Amino acid sequence: MIRIGIAGYGYWGPNLARATAETGLARVEMIADRDPEALRRAAQRHPEARLTQDIAAMIADPAVDAVMIATPVHTHHELALAALMAAKHVLVEKPMADTAARAARLVEEAARRALVLQVDHTFIHTPAVQAIARLIGAGELGEIYYYDSTRVNLGLFQRDVSVVWDLAVHDFAILDHLLGAAPVAISASSAGFLTDSPENMAHLTVYYDSGAMAHLNVNWLAPVKIRQTLIGGSRRMVIYDDMQTSEKVKVYDRGASCGTNPLDRRVSYRLGDMHAPALSSKEALLSGIEDFLGCIDTGRRPVTDGESGLRVVRMLEAATLSSRMRGIPVDIGTLKEAS
Amino acid sequence: MIRIGIAGYGYWGPNLARATAETGLARVEMIADRDPEALRRAAQRHPEARLTQDIAAMIADPAVDAVMIATPVHTHHELALAALMAAKHVLVEKPMADTAARAARLVEEAARRALVLQVDHTFIHTPAVQAIARLIGAGELGEIYYYDSTRVNLGLFQRDVSVVWDLAVHDFAILDHLLGAAPVAISASSAGFLTDSPENMAHLTVYYDSGAMAHLNVNWLAPVKIRQTLIGGSRRMVIYDDMQTSEKVKVYDRGASCGTNPLDRRVSYRLGDMHAPALSSKEALLSGIEDFLGCIDTGRRPVTDGESGLRVVRMLEAATLSSRMRGIPVDIGTLKEAS
Amino acid sequence: MIRIGIAGYGYWGPNLARATAETGLARVEMIADRDPEALRRAAQRHPEARLTQDIAAMIADPAVDAVMIATPVHTHHELALAALMAAKHVLVEKPMADTAARAARLVEEAARRALVLQVDHTFIHTPAVQAIARLIGAGELGEIYYYDSTRVNLGLFQRDVSVVWDLAVHDFAILDHLLGAAPVAISASSAGFLTDSPENMAHLTVYYDSGAMAHLNVNWLAPVKIRQTLIGGSRRMVIYDDMQTSEKVKVYDRGASCGTNPLDRRVSYRLGDMHAPALSSKEALLSGIEDFLGCIDTGRRPVTDGESGLRVVRMLEAATLSSRMRGIPVDIGTLKEAS
Amino acid sequence: MIRIGIAGYGYWGPNLARATAETGLARVEMIADRDPEALRRAAQRHPEARLTQDIAAMIADPAVDAVMIATPVHTHHELALAALMAAKHVLVEKPMADTAARAARLVEEAARRALVLQVDHTFIHTPAVQAIARLIGAGELGEIYYYDSTRVNLGLFQRDVSVVWDLAVHDFAILDHLLGAAPVAISASSAGFLTDSPENMAHLTVYYDSGAMAHLNVNWLAPVKIRQTLIGGSRRMVIYDDMQTSEKVKVYDRGASCGTNPLDRRVSYRLGDMHAPALSSKEALLSGIEDFLGCIDTGRRPVTDGESGLRVVRMLEAATLSSRMRGIPVDIGTLKEAS
Repeated sequence: MIRIGIAGYGYWGPNLARATAETGLARVEMIADRDPEALRRAAQRHPEARLTQDIAAMIADPAVDAVMIATPVHTHHELALAALMAAKHVLVEKPMADTAARAARLVEEAARRALVLQVDHTFIHTPAVQAIARLIGAGELGEIYYYDSTRVNLGLFQRDVSVVWDLAVHDFAILDHLLGAAPVAISASSAGFLTDSPENMAHLTVYYDSGAMAHLNVNWLAPVKIRQTLIGGSRRMVIYDDMQTSEKVKVYDRGASCGTNPLDRRVSYRLGDMHAPALSSKEALLSGIEDFLGCIDTGRRPVTDGESGLRVVRMLEAATLSSRMRGIPVDIGTLKEAS
Repeated sequence: MIRIGIAGYGYWGPNLARATAETGLARVEMIADRDPEALRRAAQRHPEARLTQDIAAMIADPAVDAVMIATPVHTHHELALAALMAAKHVLVEKPMADTAARAARLVEEAARRALVLQVDHTFIHTPAVQAIARLIGAGELGEIYYYDSTRVNLGLFQRDVSVVWDLAVHDFAILDHLLGAAPVAISASSAGFLTDSPENMAHLTVYYDSGAMAHLNVNWLAPVKIRQTLIGGSRRMVIYDDMQTSEKVKVYDRGASCGTNPLDRRVSYRLGDMHAPALSSKEALLSGIEDFLGCIDTGRRPVTDGESGLRVVRMLEAATLSSRMRGIPVDIGTLKEAS
Repeated sequence: MIRIGIAGYGYWGPNLARATAETGLARVEMIADRDPEALRRAAQRHPEARLTQDIAAMIADPAVDAVMIATPVHTHHELALAALMAAKHVLVEKPMADTAARAARLVEEAARRALVLQVDHTFIHTPAVQAIARLIGAGELGEIYYYDSTRVNLGLFQRDVSVVWDLAVHDFAILDHLLGAAPVAISASSAGFLTDSPENMAHLTVYYDSGAMAHLNVNWLAPVKIRQTLIGGSRRMVIYDDMQTSEKVKVYDRGASCGTNPLDRRVSYRLGDMHAPALSSKEALLSGIEDFLGCIDTGRRPVTDGESGLRVVRMLEAATLSSRMRGIPVDIGTLKEAS
Repeated sequence: MIRIGIAGYGYWGPNLARATAETGLARVEMIADRDPEALRRAAQRHPEARLTQDIAAMIADPAVDAVMIATPVHTHHELALAALMAAKHVLVEKPMADTAARAARLVEEAARRALVLQVDHTFIHTPAVQAIARLIGAGELGEIYYYDSTRVNLGLFQRDVSVVWDLAVHDFAILDHLLGAAPVAISASSAGFLTDSPENMAHLTVYYDSGAMAHLNVNWLAPVKIRQTLIGGSRRMVIYDDMQTSEKVKVYDRGASCGTNPLDRRVSYRLGDMHAPALSSKEALLSGIEDFLGCIDTGRRPVTDGESGLRVVRMLEAATLSSRMRGIPVDIGTLKEAS
């Protein structure tokens, strides 16, 4: 049984610990958090685990095979690197690191030591995103024209990261998973309406070589919660609405095409059926952790591996840079070399 | 009774003629269209009107007091200028002209001759936009933070104008009406997915001096029709959903604020009631034409006067320019001087 | 070309006249209404038609082949009978007559003279109901378990008929079309909350021999308009929501079944895909009138023939009787004999 | 600190135990369940509690002040009576008992011994129902005309009780709380579509002396989950939609009234604003248990006391009887005497 150490038992750490126990494939060996109150809660729910306030000691503990890191973003690099250098497999919260250079360093270290490095981009493991990935993989949507996401709600304002690093990170990971191709440039506009708080609203456009365009609308100051993505393809279009309890993914056989007769180039429309595939109710976090544990066992790469985590951080950096320049597009390739 | 000449009896002209008759304040004196089939339809519905294929002759006709222009965009400038020079009041379809310079020429001519020049930005006269304007005017929303509009549907692709000139024009007019202040810059990204067709999808960010930010998402290639605008203010927030049959405008007493104690700057949230004001069911076009006729009678300025129409065209030009440069923001002031 | 006489040019008559003209298969020969103001409106829209205040004269006119009756319900029987006896084909508004006995008299007369007798149950010709009928006909829903309809809104209160005769009549016609089988009994509860007004709210349960159960919830005093029907079958279930602009009919591959092993009769659930068929946008009234004209031409029976209209009136009578007895079920067979 | 014994740790028992601990006002002293597997789960979550398979022993235990009963319905009477006779306060799951006679026996015993007897009609403590109760109490809705509830979903079929005893019980409790007045009669229609299973669909009409009418539509075999109630009053109307995450309760200033002029009794309509009050996010179960503990402390009566629980069981009995007679209304008064 794989022995897991949990670093950070604040907001997300308890979920990692619970889901790890639920897999039945691993054991929560240790839980580390600097806050004694957090450890008290951990003791109640995981009487089987050893507890410590010293994260470094847990990382060094020989009884720990793999470390899950759920600490603040600016500590990800240091803790993940220490864990990899201690020959532990690593699952790190998103975003993987606070700069692309640091993310790249983690990828390098994991590769050198042949350790599993996974970023917890949980959305990739949701039944909805998996269903869309299958549709795209099977060519059902045709050529992808656009991905247009609205991810807004009231709060929770973060002190240390902007809405881009907190919310757009999900869409960047989904884009990376669904579109495969790397984007060429990002144009971002952002605004912050509360004094001394990071930006709470942003609009980001992601350009692809293929001509596809992605747009993300993220906002912590919206009156209601909206989680809606439109994906347009040449053959079909998708609406993915994560707030729906039923029919989260709807596939529309709709579209437009131009006549091929040069004398009559009128646009014709296709208004066909709509289809909403049944989705599994399996928890995404559980699937993600099963993937992590399976990779440790077999040596295969996780779906959300370090490279994907690095590509996401590159997009976050480009978006941050562009938003400081009021939307002047930032080339991703350039950034890539620079890192 | 004011005697109206209708130029163009294609898609929108019949609505102008019908609504003009419904006001009871004006008479459809003449209808002009180059297409004999259009005139046949006009004859059936408006037996009282004289018909002609010669728009210029109608403009020159001494029995016509005012001209309503519902012809293709590229002809607006020429026809409106001819009408003004023939001392006729003018109501012209949106957008007012195909360049800001031409729009400015019309404003100038109307001012010199003290004629009424109105642009048919019908949305401004909808009960929903009027209700929002009243809320903003009364300070109910507080300082405006953002305006975030999604205006997408499948079709109707236009041959001669892009989705920006066809759909974003509505939001530009609403922004001009609601926010008063002129924007300082626009960043736009657009894409066209059908060969030989103009751009069918665009994302536009409008920057204001106050720090407010507007964003428009327009798309002719979406699987369903969405007409939804979020407006965030420091005191309240609004959701304006034009696809709802009931409760088109919802006002949320929700928001976030930062503690003023320098030792504790935590964000606190306000989650109050929602209120949906009852809206009149009066047709917006009818209200707009009544405004036009009232202005002719009294000499006051129309709500959607030539100046507002000109400001909208300036935004359209800036958006077009920015989208050609992948989102590099275009300063509106610069454009203004240039025109 | 079939020459049509329109009896009654109030609320619905203008629609019948317009749609008749649109078919291109018939001519509006005469329009009769006692109200001179109605005839003035008729003159404007149908300059080709002869007008009269004398409905009897129109019925007797040799230039009229068929009569469409859109007068108050209590006059249907008299006018339709007169028309049939004058050898005219008849399309009569719903409900067909104010008693089953009178409805039966019309069916008898039409049969004796081999004339077309159609009741204008327009809903039967909507693309949504047609799509559901095809699903049921093809066995896609399996055995029908229930039909559960909510048809509520604010107003329009009728002076002369209750909400049952005004709204439930639609569901009775749809049930008759979809289920084929005649119901065995009806239990109804109704209430009227305004003084001197007929009942404005009713709940009706319709029992079938097969064990199927239909329920109708009709109400003129609801805060919003709801038009929603759930249809449960052993193989699939349908939600028909007429207020949706898109996806009016959704077909769910969902259900429950009981284990057949006598030792383990646990219920298991099926949670499959949802499918929303594309629907034609053809106007139902136009389809209904085309059916009427086609039947006159070919001698075939209309979809909503006199017999179906009679069955609907029998249900209305049973519902009225039951609601006076606070829900004591009224046998339809008994009523049938009685009429 | 009040010492609680939990009888039954299957589906609902764990919630009672968790919420009891969360109040901070009581201690989970003992947990009793015949199933060792249930006790294993109880041990993990409530290491502080003593566990037993012998419910009678727990009831008799002097260290237990009050018993919460979450066992199958047919055992409620026996266990609650035993607890009362052992001088324990009792919170019993809904429905209170399987017959009105047995429910009345519990009320009698609790009264004689001055013990708290509460039925866990949790819905009464939801912020939504509380908000509606305040509106009615303040006269905001005017005279109540109707209560019209749809409570349908797919599953969970129960082996031992019908959909009426499982789902309609919620609406009966809400009606009892909101309307105060006792109903005079109930007419019910039900159907069961699975072999060897209890009825899974029912329509129930509840008649009140005031002329108000309530209707409940309950169904375990619906394609989607609907929890929607319309409440019509002479002054305002309410839509309570429990599936909404935001705006569960909407209050419409809409209605109709009849002219008082005897010469013109036309109906006029009021189409005013809509208002959605902000609702607390407090868990209803927690509020209910706090009420129970407060009543033990102070001797006041719980909101959902034994009398209300008895009235609900009387309605359930009347509904069951009526449904066996295909909707023949059953008088509640008669039943009352009989019990």
